[in-house]
Amino acid sequence: MPYDYLPPLLMPNKSKIVLLVLDGLGGLPLVPDGKTELETARTPNLDRLAAEGSLGQSIPVRMGITPGSGPAHLGLFGYDPIRYDIGRGVLEAVGVGIDVDKGDIAARGNFCTLDADGRITDRRAGRISTEAAAPAIARLQSIRLEGVTLEIKQVKEYRFAVVMRGESLDPALTDTDPQVVGKAPLPVEAETEAAERTATLFNAFLDQAHELLAGEPQANGITLRGFSTEPGLPKYLDSYGLRAACVAVYPMYKGVSKLVGMDVIGFQGESPADEFAAAARAWGDYDFFFIHIKKTDSMGEDGNFDGKVGVIEAVDAALPELMRLAPDVLIVTGDHSTPAKLRYHSWHPVPYLLWAPATHLQDAQTIFGERACAQGGLGTFLAQESMKLALAHALRLIKYGA
Amino acid sequence: MPYDYLPPLLMPNKSKIVLLVLDGLGGLPLVPDGKTELETARTPNLDRLAAEGSLGQSIPVRMGITPGSGPAHLGLFGYDPIRYDIGRGVLEAVGVGIDVDKGDIAARGNFCTLDADGRITDRRAGRISTEAAAPAIARLQSIRLEGVTLEIKQVKEYRFAVVMRGESLDPALTDTDPQVVGKAPLPVEAETEAAERTATLFNAFLDQAHELLAGEPQANGITLRGFSTEPGLPKYLDSYGLRAACVAVYPMYKGVSKLVGMDVIGFQGESPADEFAAAARAWGDYDFFFIHIKKTDSMGEDGNFDGKVGVIEAVDAALPELMRLAPDVLIVTGDHSTPAKLRYHSWHPVPYLLWAPATHLQDAQTIFGERACAQGGLGTFLAQESMKLALAHALRLIKYGA
Repeated sequence: MPYDYLPPLLMPNKSKIVLLVLDGLGGLPLVPDGKTELETARTPNLDRLAAEGSLGQSIPVRMGITPGSGPAHLGLFGYDPIRYDIGRGVLEAVGVGIDVDKGDIAARGNFCTLDADGRITDRRAGRISTEAAAPAIARLQSIRLEGVTLEIKQVKEYRFAVVMRGESLDPALTDTDPQVVGKAPLPVEAETEAAERTATLFNAFLDQAHELLAGEPQANGITLRGFSTEPGLPKYLDSYGLRAACVAVYPMYKGVSKLVGMDVIGFQGESPADEFAAAARAWGDYDFFFIHIKKTDSMGEDGNFDGKVGVIEAVDAALPELMRLAPDVLIVTGDHSTPAKLRYHSWHPVPYLLWAPATHLQDAQTIFGERACAQGGLGTFLAQESMKLALAHALRLIKYGA
Repeated sequence: MPYDYLPPLLMPNKSKIVLLVLDGLGGLPLVPDGKTELETARTPNLDRLAAEGSLGQSIPVRMGITPGSGPAHLGLFGYDPIRYDIGRGVLEAVGVGIDVDKGDIAARGNFCTLDADGRITDRRAGRISTEAAAPAIARLQSIRLEGVTLEIKQVKEYRFAVVMRGESLDPALTDTDPQVVGKAPLPVEAETEAAERTATLFNAFLDQAHELLAGEPQANGITLRGFSTEPGLPKYLDSYGLRAACVAVYPMYKGVSKLVGMDVIGFQGESPADEFAAAARAWGDYDFFFIHIKKTDSMGEDGNFDGKVGVIEAVDAALPELMRLAPDVLIVTGDHSTPAKLRYHSWHPVPYLLWAPATHLQDAQTIFGERACAQGGLGTFLAQESMKLALAHALRLIKYGA
C-alpha cells in the first residue's frame, strides 16, 4: 500500500472524484515580470473554480527533481515515485501500448551504429529519424525464438521497446550498452541463476538482430537496457477503495494507469471535449476518473508558449461538459511543469486546484495560475499527498484513532 | 524519543512555554464567501497576538487524515501519531480517568443485545442511553476475579472501559466482537503463550458478565476490543527537557498528557478563566503548560456555529489573565478542525499562532483566522513539528553540528 494506515480508514460511498491532469501544466514567463502560460490563458471556468475552491502547489517527486512521465503520474496517483520503481523497460513498453503482465520481460532498446569489427561508433545510430528506423524495426519484428513470443514497437527515432513472453522468465539481467563508443555491445548476463535461461534467450535475440541488421547503413546494431517486469504496484481498489477509470489519448498514460489497476476507457477523438464525453459515458461505473490532457506538455516541449496557452484555453472551454457531471471532488493540476521557455520537463512546483463544494475551504485566491497557487490555502505539498486529500474531501475516510 | 537528534541539543533555561489548544479549532464557512467560526469570533486579544507574532497552519497527522483526539494530541506533543500508537483500550480508559500503568491491561467494552441463543442482535445494545446503561455498569463493577483487580467505568451510552491489574498480564489478545449480528460474541484468544493466562482471566470476566447481565432488556451482553497496556511513550522531560503541566477539564486530555509525562493540575471550575488561573498557580513549578479548551470541539460536533464562536470569544476574553504571566512562548492552535458545518472532526489544516516576542518574526497577518493562517509566515507544516518550534523560540535548543 502507498500508505499502510489508509486501507483501515476507507469508507465506501457514492461520491465521484475527478483528477484532471494537464500534462506539464506549470510554466514560466518568457520575460521578467511576464506571465506564465497558465496565467496568460483566458480561463473563465478554471478561474471560477479557483475562486470557489482552494489552491496550492504540488512538488512532483521531491523539491528540485524533474520527473519523467512515469514517476510524475505515480506521484499524483499517491505512490511515492522514489519507493515505487517502474522498470525502464516496462515504462517504455506501456508507453507504446504494449501490455506487460507479471512475468513478461520488457526492455528498452536503442539502435546503434557498429563498425566492421562490431564496435559501437554511435550509441544512438546518428539519432536516426523515426522514418529511417522503421525498416530496422520491421526486421526485428521478424525474429522468432523457441518457446517464447516477442512484441517489438518503435518508440521514436533510435528507441524501441521489446517484450518477451513465456514461462519462467526473469528480469535479473544486465544492460548491454557499454556506455562508450569503441566497444562492442555487451552480452546480456544473468544476475541470478533463475535468470540464466532468459539471458540466453535475449542473447539469441541479439545475435539474430545483428545478423538481420547487418545491411542497415545507420541502425546496424542494438543495445538493450532496463530489463523489468510488471512491478506489482498496489491497485487503486486496494489502496483507496476506488473503482478507477483512465481517460487518456496517449499509450504511456493508459499504461501507467493500468499498472495501478485503472480501467482504460476507449473513445473516439482526442480533444478535451472528447475526453470529457468519454468520462460522461462511463460516469456510472466508476468512483474515480483520471483524465489526461497531453498537449500542454507537447507544446511546452516544442517551446510553443502560445500553443500551450491555446491548449489550456481549449480545456477551459470544454470544462462545462465535465462540470455538468457534478463531481464531488475535482482536482485540476499537472504531473510536472514543462515551461515553453525551457522546452523540457522541469522541477518547478505545479499549480493545483481543489474544488469540492461540500468540504473545501475557499481561500483568498481568485484565478488559476502559478503565483495564485503559491499563495493558496493548501500550501505546498508533495504530489503523492494528493490522493489522500481527494479521499478526504470525498468523505471516504473515517477518523484515524479514537 | 520523538526526534532522536533533539535530546543532545536541549539546553535548560527559565523560559515558560504555553501551548493553548482550542479543541477542534479549525472550521468552515456555512455559506460560500462566508467566514469560519474563528473568523467570525470577535477576538481582539488573539488578533493582537496574531499581528505581533507569526501564523501558520498545521496538518494534524498527514494531509487528508482526520484524527481522533488521541493521535491529534500526540501530534501536537511532537510524537508522530503514525509511529506512536496508543491502544484503543488505553485511550478509552484514560479518557474516563482510569490510570493505566505499565502491565495493566485496558480494553474498550461495548454493551450488545443477545437473543435467547446468545447471538448478537444489536452490536450497540440499541444505542442504549447513558442512564439506561448505568445499572449494567454497576453489575460489571461487582465482578471479582482471583489474583487480579478490575476497574470499570462507563464512557457514554453503550461504551465502557475496563482495566485489569495484576502480575504478568499481557495484552496480546484478540477482540471478541464478531463484527456482525447473528453470531455470539467470540472468546478472547491469546496471540502468544505469554498472554494465555490473561485470556483465561478475561474469558472468566466475560462469563460472569453475561450471567450478571442476563436480566437486562437491552444491555445483556458485552464485547471487548483494543486490549492494550501503557504504551511507554517517551516522556516530556526526556524528549524535551521540560517539566510539563496539563490543565484540562476532560479526562481524555489529562490521560494522554500523563502518557507523555505531564503532571495534571487539579482545579475548580471549567471556564477558560479557571484554567488560566490554575496555570497561574502552578506557574513557578513547570516549564511547559498544555492548556486544553474542550468546548470549541463539542460545539462543532453539535453543529453549533454560533456556540463555537462564543467559546472562542470566551477564551479571547480571558486571555489577558494568561498574558499577565508573560510566557516566553505562546502557541495557540487546535488539535484538529471540527467545522460546525460538518459536525465532525475533519482533516482540514488547523490555524496556528506563534507568539514569542524575543524571537518571532512578525509576518504580514493581522488577525487570527484560517485564511490569515494559510498566508502566515510559518507556512503549512505537520503538527508534530510544533514542539521543536516551541523549544527553539524558548531558546532551549543549541546549534546542531559545528
